[in-house]
Amino acid sequence: MQGYERDQASDAEVEQEEALYGPLTQAVRALVDATVRTLAEPEEVRAATAQIEAITARLSARQLEGSYGIRMRPDGNNRAWGNAVVGLRNPLAPPLVVHHDEQGNVWSQFHLGAAYEGPPTLVHGGVAALILDQLLGHAAGAGGRPGMTGTLTLRYRSATPLGDLRGEAWIDRAEGIKTYAKGRLIGPEGITVEAEGVFILPRWARERLAAEPAPQFFE
Amino acid sequence: MQGYERDQASDAEVEQEEALYGPLTQAVRALVDATVRTLAEPEEVRAATAQIEAITARLSARQLEGSYGIRMRPDGNNRAWGNAVVGLRNPLAPPLVVHHDEQGNVWSQFHLGAAYEGPPTLVHGGVAALILDQLLGHAAGAGGRPGMTGTLTLRYRSATPLGDLRGEAWIDRAEGIKTYAKGRLIGPEGITVEAEGVFILPRWARERLAAEPAPQFFE
Repeated sequence: MQGYERDQASDAEVEQEEALYGPLTQAVRALVDATVRTLAEPEEVRAATAQIEAITARLSARQLEGSYGIRMRPDGNNRAWGNAVVGLRNPLAPPLVVHHDEQGNVWSQFHLGAAYEGPPTLVHGGVAALILDQLLGHAAGAGGRPGMTGTLTLRYRSATPLGDLRGEAWIDRAEGIKTYAKGRLIGPEGITVEAEGVFILPRWARERLAAEPAPQFFE
Repeated sequence: MQGYERDQASDAEVEQEEALYGPLTQAVRALVDATVRTLAEPEEVRAATAQIEAITARLSARQLEGSYGIRMRPDGNNRAWGNAVVGLRNPLAPPLVVHHDEQGNVWSQFHLGAAYEGPPTLVHGGVAALILDQLLGHAAGAGGRPGMTGTLTLRYRSATPLGDLRGEAWIDRAEGIKTYAKGRLIGPEGITVEAEGVFILPRWARERLAAEPAPQFFE
């Protein structure tokens, strides 16, 4: 499958890369926030622009031809470091650290700052959708039924304020190659957005599921 | 309304700010891409991290207390410069430049690079949702019926490759305070995602609509 590479790095190398790229990405996240909010003098902004362009030129002198992809590890801790929601190397990702159990229940606490704004002071409705899509997909995968999103429905019950938030998702039911996952976004005053998604098992997973007994919780 | 400020800047000042912040934000977007893809030597990455932290410290020494909000201009060209999809000052935004007519038809051509990845080489399903939410909301607003997202449903018909894409949205129908908008994402090989959303008129817009004759296309 295109972009799903077997990860050649040892555990020690992965740790070294985390220690190298984690701080870079976090620094760029903070710069993104400062870019939205700065009130610095024009000459300061122009100087920063030129310095950032120079840094980018050095970093991109040697780079991946395309996107990061997903690197598959034998222990299942695959590296989706370019992912727009959870990617360790992606400054667009808040990032979410997603916890899960083997029944496909997932949860995450995270913070959304000024760069995730839609209506003033509120999380962009589409950012809520972005995060819930990731969590629902993660639930399907954690429950042994990975898949591509087939449909996704969001119900916006109340405005989601920027700040500290919680997301949850779980598998509602499975029918053949379809997995129905549900989830919600929770702000300081309760549930703000509810989501339901259908995830379609890819062919390789169908073959694997057919070869193995179904997990207990689907029976 | 919290965060909806009357814009105090003159047209000339807005132009100056565009010329100042546009290039800064574009530079940070390029840095975001380089952060995902760099293969630079570790010492280069560490030096870049320290330099970026120093730039952020200077830019954030004087900054907005919270998020950017939306600044309302008399000519209707309101500044949503912090917006996660279209914000001129938001490096997370691709950004989309959205065109529209007065019937609520909107369209946009844009490019999504490595930072918008979900499955390898493909646009994150949630990023497609993020962009379509913005376009559908824009359609509702362009048609004279602004609103907050009530529900949003996405149908993923085929994978969306990273790269050059087109988005379209339009008003399907309006019923009382609800506006039904539809839209789609289009890749090099055709439609990849379809969306339908319900947008709820805020109170201030209900009062305005009641005071004015409805636009032709709703009759």
